[in-house]
Amino acid sequence: MCRWLAYSGTPIRLEELLVKRDRSLIDQSLHSRLGATTTNGDGFGVGYRSIHPAWNDRNLRELAAGISSPLFLAHIRASTGSAIQETNAHPFRHGQWLWMHNGLIREFSTVRRELLLAVDDSLFPAIEGTTDSEAMFYLALTFGLEDDPIGAVERMVGFVEETGRRHGVDQPIQMTIATSDGRSIYAFRYSSEGASRSLFFSTRMDALQANYPEMVELAGLSDETRVVVSEPLGDLEGAWNEVPESHVGIIQPGDDELRPFSPRV
Amino acid sequence: MCRWLAYSGTPIRLEELLVKRDRSLIDQSLHSRLGATTTNGDGFGVGYRSIHPAWNDRNLRELAAGISSPLFLAHIRASTGSAIQETNAHPFRHGQWLWMHNGLIREFSTVRRELLLAVDDSLFPAIEGTTDSEAMFYLALTFGLEDDPIGAVERMVGFVEETGRRHGVDQPIQMTIATSDGRSIYAFRYSSEGASRSLFFSTRMDALQANYPEMVELAGLSDETRVVVSEPLGDLEGAWNEVPESHVGIIQPGDDELRPFSPRV
Amino acid sequence: MCRWLAYSGTPIRLEELLVKRDRSLIDQSLHSRLGATTTNGDGFGVGYRSIHPAWNDRNLRELAAGISSPLFLAHIRASTGSAIQETNAHPFRHGQWLWMHNGLIREFSTVRRELLLAVDDSLFPAIEGTTDSEAMFYLALTFGLEDDPIGAVERMVGFVEETGRRHGVDQPIQMTIATSDGRSIYAFRYSSEGASRSLFFSTRMDALQANYPEMVELAGLSDETRVVVSEPLGDLEGAWNEVPESHVGIIQPGDDELRPFSPRV
Amino acid sequence: MCRWLAYSGTPIRLEELLVKRDRSLIDQSLHSRLGATTTNGDGFGVGYRSIHPAWNDRNLRELAAGISSPLFLAHIRASTGSAIQETNAHPFRHGQWLWMHNGLIREFSTVRRELLLAVDDSLFPAIEGTTDSEAMFYLALTFGLEDDPIGAVERMVGFVEETGRRHGVDQPIQMTIATSDGRSIYAFRYSSEGASRSLFFSTRMDALQANYPEMVELAGLSDETRVVVSEPLGDLEGAWNEVPESHVGIIQPGDDELRPFSPRV
Repeated sequence: MCRWLAYSGTPIRLEELLVKRDRSLIDQSLHSRLGATTTNGDGFGVGYRSIHPAWNDRNLRELAAGISSPLFLAHIRASTGSAIQETNAHPFRHGQWLWMHNGLIREFSTVRRELLLAVDDSLFPAIEGTTDSEAMFYLALTFGLEDDPIGAVERMVGFVEETGRRHGVDQPIQMTIATSDGRSIYAFRYSSEGASRSLFFSTRMDALQANYPEMVELAGLSDETRVVVSEPLGDLEGAWNEVPESHVGIIQPGDDELRPFSPRV
Repeated sequence: MCRWLAYSGTPIRLEELLVKRDRSLIDQSLHSRLGATTTNGDGFGVGYRSIHPAWNDRNLRELAAGISSPLFLAHIRASTGSAIQETNAHPFRHGQWLWMHNGLIREFSTVRRELLLAVDDSLFPAIEGTTDSEAMFYLALTFGLEDDPIGAVERMVGFVEETGRRHGVDQPIQMTIATSDGRSIYAFRYSSEGASRSLFFSTRMDALQANYPEMVELAGLSDETRVVVSEPLGDLEGAWNEVPESHVGIIQPGDDELRPFSPRV
Repeated sequence: MCRWLAYSGTPIRLEELLVKRDRSLIDQSLHSRLGATTTNGDGFGVGYRSIHPAWNDRNLRELAAGISSPLFLAHIRASTGSAIQETNAHPFRHGQWLWMHNGLIREFSTVRRELLLAVDDSLFPAIEGTTDSEAMFYLALTFGLEDDPIGAVERMVGFVEETGRRHGVDQPIQMTIATSDGRSIYAFRYSSEGASRSLFFSTRMDALQANYPEMVELAGLSDETRVVVSEPLGDLEGAWNEVPESHVGIIQPGDDELRPFSPRV
Repeated sequence: MCRWLAYSGTPIRLEELLVKRDRSLIDQSLHSRLGATTTNGDGFGVGYRSIHPAWNDRNLRELAAGISSPLFLAHIRASTGSAIQETNAHPFRHGQWLWMHNGLIREFSTVRRELLLAVDDSLFPAIEGTTDSEAMFYLALTFGLEDDPIGAVERMVGFVEETGRRHGVDQPIQMTIATSDGRSIYAFRYSSEGASRSLFFSTRMDALQANYPEMVELAGLSDETRVVVSEPLGDLEGAWNEVPESHVGIIQPGDDELRPFSPRV
């Protein structure tokens, strides 16, 4: 339904990951191999948000060529029904926190009102769009995302599942999510049915560099450099590892972590 | 904050009113004379909705030149804060009903949640944007717009004022509104402070034609032809009449009507 | 590269052909079966022009549901390199004439300057975009499109081929084209290599109605009703006929015609 | 007709100049004080280009808050007739060079063809839009902008004036222009009639800091920091100096310069 990418590490020009590879995110906007939809042309976001398809967008190419960053999230969208408008494009931002999502809340129009009602009074006015993804973000913020990111997402998913089931929805949620405060990245893979959208993280950079000493593009990247993606950016053997079902990866200064994830009611 | 125009009568090319006059709606998008803001460049709508300023929009000119209609609503927007996106552009449509608004609900971010909660369950999923204007529309629909348009708007305004005052807002609502089922047009002028945005209706066409027998553009228009506008489309003497404070005009087959309007709790 | 549709006949709501069928033009924007590209998401046009993909565009659906017409051209675009902007979207209009194209002029950037130079002085300022398709239109206008449509297109193609070959281009042109003065539609299928993009016209309406007396959607359509399309709108047997290589079809009041087409130098 | 701003100096967040001041560039998009038009709502550009008015554009605010740069050009547009599309938005870029313009070539539609013909063959395919401003850029590139910026602009202006006069245009050109290779900025003020659009440069930063030791926002800016603007960003006394008629300012590492400018045939 969507594809996304989260990067942390040595400052890098965005175009290296978004544009220049064979299976870059822009390539995936037209030709996704693992996605639920082949075409992800309902807008994109990375620092700025657009309602245009990514593939022929010149601003995206200009900015991606001119901007370097040590941490960024990028997303291409395939709408599951909500309007094509910038306020529905990922990543969403609230204060220091970014949020992007692939998947859906099933029968969202049925449960939307009840989910929105649970958003904290002080956060409610900041909701600008109409997607399930943004509702999930504001629920997670309500449940304490800024203080305990993993706990808050566990409670958000628990609440969405409980609400959906109360309305007779069998498998209420399907998601991969990346969220970040600009310092760490939390990448979740979960679905009510235990068959979640694909999610991969890159191998430790020092190991990769040892295996491929001849690859110029890997040279100069710090040991901590890491990418999390909906689908691999290429087919370099040993470079990509699937995030297991119902797990969350934490990319942070120091050792990264991979932990089991389960909804909390 | 916005400017709008509603037309009923002999089928007419839209460009006659939107483009071709000195003080056409397109002219008002750049140079409003009576509006709270001079520039109304945050989008427009008439049959289709756009986030571009009306003044240089070629699609608007092409369509306005090619389409004739016996009844239409047109609107140019100056945002009071909500996002510039098509789902926030007027007129809003639900089934056969169109709705457009000039003005605002004061401190909308404070009362928005409570107003949305009052919208009927079956209507809630149809809300696509984030404006006060669309919230007013769905409240009016909840209160029976389709069966008793005037009564429903009276109750909507009563509810908005009651809610605002409960939150300490002095003058909760400021509005001119046009709504139509494609057969009649209801044009409201009201504000809590009794100093509403401007609203004018055109003089009966037969009287106007009698006074200006030489005006080619009036020839051929039926006696029932009528325009309601935020500000006059020109300065033809005797052509424009102000809608009095706290009144609603009904443009319909047969005699039109002008009635006092007051909120109902 | 693109897909298009031209209709002439009993006034019909645009959505009948653009939206409502299984293999409607909107469906083809995401899933073209016969096109050189599967995705045609770089804009569309029908009376108005947009840079958004057609598939999720709400204005297109609103307008297509509200507008009926006895003759129209519709187009969805897959750019071969030129910018995604309204002035590059088809159909192009000059006075009464509309023009849309599927295909390309090969090595256009090499020959563009020379082709533009051949456009008549009085027409040159009207060129607003940067596509090969629009250049072909203004060349055809220069060669007399308004007086002798077929002759003018023959000369345009001859000139493009001669220019291309002088620059060492083997197969300079690939095209299906529809052009109309609002009364007749001229539909061309031609390519330098003799392997042109697909083009189909619908069977005579009275024959189709006789074969399918039970089909409600055919009832009420005049005998002269005809559609020309890049690819069939469905798989009704006997409904669609391929335009032969190097031919032009003329849809007009009275009998339609199919004639051989060859470039003229 | 337009407003622009060029900055060179200590890396600064773009929002400091584009958003945060009373008379910021965004403020000028709605309320220009010195411009030929009050509203400059036909798009903008700074690193990326947009067809939306700057005043309510959230991407502009997000990017301007997140990006710091030691040298940038920013522009807001009021079209003099050419289409509202990204390829017509300033600044234009070719290789390392940026270009933006306020003013016009008079009777451009008359001379456009002849001006375009003079553009070098190798540069012609890179022209993507339809403005006089972009034509001036490609003429200047043809005349050697990359090697001798001032000489190339002198020859460009001489050529435009000579061409215009040959077609009976009295005052062929009106312009302020900024162009930069990312290292120096060249700012021109010239018009055939000797009454050019306004242009100001900021006082040397050390002098300004000495006069206003209490101003926090000036602290930390290097002595070489300099801004050139269509109209002052505020009314700080002594801060803004008019560029004299027919002059060019050069902002560069080391001492800046101000030289007389005259067209060369």
